[in-house]
Amino acid sequence: MKLATLNDNTRDGRLILVSRDGSRYVEVADIAPTMQDALDRWNEVEGALKARSAELESSSIPSHPVEISKLHSPLPRAYEWIDGSAYINHIVLVRKARGAEPPETLETDPLIYQGGSGTFLAPTQDIPLVDFNWGLDFEAEIAVILGDTPQGVTPDNALDYVRLIVLVNDITLRNLIPPELAKGFGFFNSKPSSAFSPFALTPDELGDAWKNGRVHLPLRTTYNGELFGDPEAGPEMHFGFKELIAHIAKTRPFTAGTILGSGTVSNEDRSRGSSCLAEKRMIEKIDTGEFHTPFMNAGDTVEIEMLDKNGHNLFGTISQKVVKV
Amino acid sequence: MKLATLNDNTRDGRLILVSRDGSRYVEVADIAPTMQDALDRWNEVEGALKARSAELESSSIPSHPVEISKLHSPLPRAYEWIDGSAYINHIVLVRKARGAEPPETLETDPLIYQGGSGTFLAPTQDIPLVDFNWGLDFEAEIAVILGDTPQGVTPDNALDYVRLIVLVNDITLRNLIPPELAKGFGFFNSKPSSAFSPFALTPDELGDAWKNGRVHLPLRTTYNGELFGDPEAGPEMHFGFKELIAHIAKTRPFTAGTILGSGTVSNEDRSRGSSCLAEKRMIEKIDTGEFHTPFMNAGDTVEIEMLDKNGHNLFGTISQKVVKV
Repeated sequence: MKLATLNDNTRDGRLILVSRDGSRYVEVADIAPTMQDALDRWNEVEGALKARSAELESSSIPSHPVEISKLHSPLPRAYEWIDGSAYINHIVLVRKARGAEPPETLETDPLIYQGGSGTFLAPTQDIPLVDFNWGLDFEAEIAVILGDTPQGVTPDNALDYVRLIVLVNDITLRNLIPPELAKGFGFFNSKPSSAFSPFALTPDELGDAWKNGRVHLPLRTTYNGELFGDPEAGPEMHFGFKELIAHIAKTRPFTAGTILGSGTVSNEDRSRGSSCLAEKRMIEKIDTGEFHTPFMNAGDTVEIEMLDKNGHNLFGTISQKVVKV
Repeated sequence: MKLATLNDNTRDGRLILVSRDGSRYVEVADIAPTMQDALDRWNEVEGALKARSAELESSSIPSHPVEISKLHSPLPRAYEWIDGSAYINHIVLVRKARGAEPPETLETDPLIYQGGSGTFLAPTQDIPLVDFNWGLDFEAEIAVILGDTPQGVTPDNALDYVRLIVLVNDITLRNLIPPELAKGFGFFNSKPSSAFSPFALTPDELGDAWKNGRVHLPLRTTYNGELFGDPEAGPEMHFGFKELIAHIAKTRPFTAGTILGSGTVSNEDRSRGSSCLAEKRMIEKIDTGEFHTPFMNAGDTVEIEMLDKNGHNLFGTISQKVVKV
């Protein structure tokens, strides 16, 4: 199933079901009014949502054309947004970029941070630029949305709690990171509101591309109209979602609707490009001694999407423009 | 007004209004079914809640006896839980305890971390102990619950967004902190689910004790039946809630129901005791070269409460027992 949230000017929007090709939708307010409500009562509503989805695919019920600009983040606000950093190549490059060493436990203990989850941006909402000197950057990622997840879940059964998969633009203010991390308590001001893909997919929609807690497809980022990167999201995800879920659940349970991100998708093969400006800048620095690519400025645009093997756009496209406020 | 949430076995409980003396309550489901809903529509519902509260105080409507054990956290889950660390004495002692230096910007740049907000403990719920070696500790704090708060709020108008005040037991797993912070991304596993006070108070309930964004009353912690600390929460809160709110709002807005904590309340005057075991242990280490007080173990109990000048219990008592799971 492909779920989405219509922005009807309420706080949490209205849940809709979208056709596999992303073009049509049907209302499901009689089953669950919001995405959070559906996640809260997943076992109760999943059957009815599947039946409605089948009716939509078979065109046996009336449907409406999807307008991406009218969609909100699948969860306009969530109870938790936790972001991993599971691609080793990204960690090594970005730490090098800010003169920091990778942690000693890089390959054995997942890196994770607790993000802000109260005010997400819609998939086509402008990214507010307050101060160019903050170093505005995008980060293209994959995330899972969990159902109720008990404390102590192990990697073996962790994937049972994955309800939906989305893409993320984890917007980052690079130049606020070093002083913030120096204080020892992690990111805060350096991570403004993130944006999520128009559609949230149940894992079965990915077919055999969803394997071992990883999405085995390239994640495409287009920056100012040009392909910026299309790294494979599967093979170099050092900790898969199994391991990330088990890691976060070590000391507490999670409520339905908790979002858990992969971290910036990154490949060692430079020909695949990057999923954030910081990596490209670091590669420039390594190669030439200097940074060339500036951080985002007013008017810059970023698009993040994932195509399946047949070129179909799975999650819809996160498409944002930077606007000075 | 004094608000609370009845645990009616739904996820978000049922909003009630409690009498000033904490003994009686009335239903308000016809005004707002949940605390989150009331916060989402505060301007719309505040008048009706106030009128109902006045009726309760004048005993002009039927009311029910409050049973603290049947209350949930005011917000059983919240969209954000952000914790400051605004008492310099606590920072200095606790960093010393784990062999870390206070940050250079200690007195100019607030310390803040993003906490997990999806699964709070009820005020009298047991604290689960998985492994004694994790170093289970309590932390007594004050927190504010915000209404919708725009990005860029300044200290001058920050208090306009404070809707409610609560107490917190910010439960901490001390021995998981050093390896976690060494990774550079802040707390995660070391901060399990927090517990909040039975009652959430509108600031006016504190009278002149709510001053300049600080609560000028002692915060009492009782450990295993003995007074453990009653530090004054006002004078040594280096950054008040004005400054903390302005700090968090630098790069993003916040949704109604965001909870912002003060950090562990702490006084330089040792005769006022401590609000967590870590401080007491550090003082022992400084004085005798060794830690004496162990971290919490099965059967240990902690109570956190705040009395007004006349000895009335303002927020109800957080009263928890550690239970091995």
